[in-house]
Amino acid sequence: MTDLKHKILSAVRDDLTLIEAALVENLHPQFDLVRQVAGHLLFAGGKRLRPLLMLLSARLCGYDGESRAADYAVIFEYLHAATLIHDDVVDGAALRRGRQAAHHVWDPPTAVLTGDFLLARSLSLAVRTGLTEVMGVIAGITEQMSQGEIRQLTHKGDLTLTEARYLEVIRCKTAVLFQGACRVGALIAGATKTHQEALDSYGYHLGMAFQMADDLLDYTQESAVLGKAAGADLREGKLTLPVIRALQKAEGPDKQWMTALIRRGDFSADEFGALVALMARYGGIDYTRQRASEHVRKAKTSLEIFGGAASVAPLRDIADYAWSRAS
Amino acid sequence: MTDLKHKILSAVRDDLTLIEAALVENLHPQFDLVRQVAGHLLFAGGKRLRPLLMLLSARLCGYDGESRAADYAVIFEYLHAATLIHDDVVDGAALRRGRQAAHHVWDPPTAVLTGDFLLARSLSLAVRTGLTEVMGVIAGITEQMSQGEIRQLTHKGDLTLTEARYLEVIRCKTAVLFQGACRVGALIAGATKTHQEALDSYGYHLGMAFQMADDLLDYTQESAVLGKAAGADLREGKLTLPVIRALQKAEGPDKQWMTALIRRGDFSADEFGALVALMARYGGIDYTRQRASEHVRKAKTSLEIFGGAASVAPLRDIADYAWSRAS
Repeated sequence: MTDLKHKILSAVRDDLTLIEAALVENLHPQFDLVRQVAGHLLFAGGKRLRPLLMLLSARLCGYDGESRAADYAVIFEYLHAATLIHDDVVDGAALRRGRQAAHHVWDPPTAVLTGDFLLARSLSLAVRTGLTEVMGVIAGITEQMSQGEIRQLTHKGDLTLTEARYLEVIRCKTAVLFQGACRVGALIAGATKTHQEALDSYGYHLGMAFQMADDLLDYTQESAVLGKAAGADLREGKLTLPVIRALQKAEGPDKQWMTALIRRGDFSADEFGALVALMARYGGIDYTRQRASEHVRKAKTSLEIFGGAASVAPLRDIADYAWSRAS
Repeated sequence: MTDLKHKILSAVRDDLTLIEAALVENLHPQFDLVRQVAGHLLFAGGKRLRPLLMLLSARLCGYDGESRAADYAVIFEYLHAATLIHDDVVDGAALRRGRQAAHHVWDPPTAVLTGDFLLARSLSLAVRTGLTEVMGVIAGITEQMSQGEIRQLTHKGDLTLTEARYLEVIRCKTAVLFQGACRVGALIAGATKTHQEALDSYGYHLGMAFQMADDLLDYTQESAVLGKAAGADLREGKLTLPVIRALQKAEGPDKQWMTALIRRGDFSADEFGALVALMARYGGIDYTRQRASEHVRKAKTSLEIFGGAASVAPLRDIADYAWSRAS
């Protein structure tokens, strides 16, 4: 474990304990199958980053009702899990968090309906806050996430996908959830508009950096570490920034070879290695790192308004961590 | 067309026009694919019963902002459409409203994500009412509907399914939406608790009767009229009240034959005819009609509190219509 990750985990240990308890508690009244299917993913070692962001944002804005906040924080893990479960059905993915995807352990219908249930549960929890603005944020997140996923699907295998469209997809499918978690933290704490905006901006940039790092890792990390097959994005025809940039800069036979391989959508380990080498040569890897690091910088700049408050540190560290994953 | 249906349609013609416009309008800002996929089902001639119930309930409670109400009313058609689209994926159904199901015209992933989008859109519209209670009702509906669908899935092919469990499934998957539409109508009109409860009860009983009638029609009506294959429920292993009751009352070789046929899940038109005859002989058909008619009676009784108000008539007629479909 890196020092940074260790430092963050020490700082948020109690919060994570609260979140774990709330994740179980809020599934408890439901019947067995849902608990099993939802739990299969939920309790397979996720980072709990999204609920944690909500708790940390709330605390930074002076909220002190930690245990109630944890109930609201799980909204963001349930929403995340709902999306992952539906995504895995949509992509036909075999693995998730190192375990068989839910639609393989059970079947696609059960997975679809469990995703629907988790989505619905998130909304019920949002209603419990009694804050119209919170419900508005949650409704907005679900709407944008589903649009992002549909966009991603329509872009599948599209070799002319532009960076701008890619950015719009990752904003909708990832950043809006980070952004929403931070804003809801501010909202339940009754923070000022300025503080709400600052945390919203932090969440947005963090989410963009986080997704870019994830997209990079699909090319730079081993399957065992990823918990899913490397090169999975490309096998699914999902073009991400490292590839988009490399394709844009590549020329001649290199470009033809890359294009053919991506079109085919299937490749040996050697071919994948050669592709990654070309992506590095044409700057796709570095460019993505650069863009991610800019978002991290902006995320941290957004926090400056809170000055030297002790509770800023974990959020700042999380931003650095998002970047360290990609570097 | 029956006289009753004609009478209802004359009374609500303007409302239906408002609803159709709002259905289009509220999909409009979205991008093309979603509009096409969602529109494929939404504009294939649904009855618009659920949004209509909301409008009529609101009017009965003195609400006069019809065009704004129509925007909220479409929540219930979108929720309904989202469920139908996901159900068709879950069931692998080929036809819906006489057209190919969305997951056949496009593909299951697109259908799943479009369902998610419609669900999300419903929530956004619910938030726009600014009424926490409305959002609570919508969140509750989505949660119960997804649970109802999951229950139905776990009961698939279960020949020991009891009437009580069947009732719980249809309450969750159908009645809560009718009930919610009526209650939200009362809520946006600022109705008294007593009026809210009365319309809630009306919606619940109407929904129960409506689903029982639907379940009966699967045995008593031709495919062409249904817009989907007759006996579809049974082919999917979905046991409904007419079968549950008949199995409970049947004995000896008749029961064995029925059980074997249902287990096999596949049958010729002749075999299906013989099955329906046995279901009638053992009272499954009549019993279901009886139960539906009781719910219709209770639905109408719930309206008595509103006395002779002119705007009660369409709601009363709709209850009779639900019954006439099954009789």
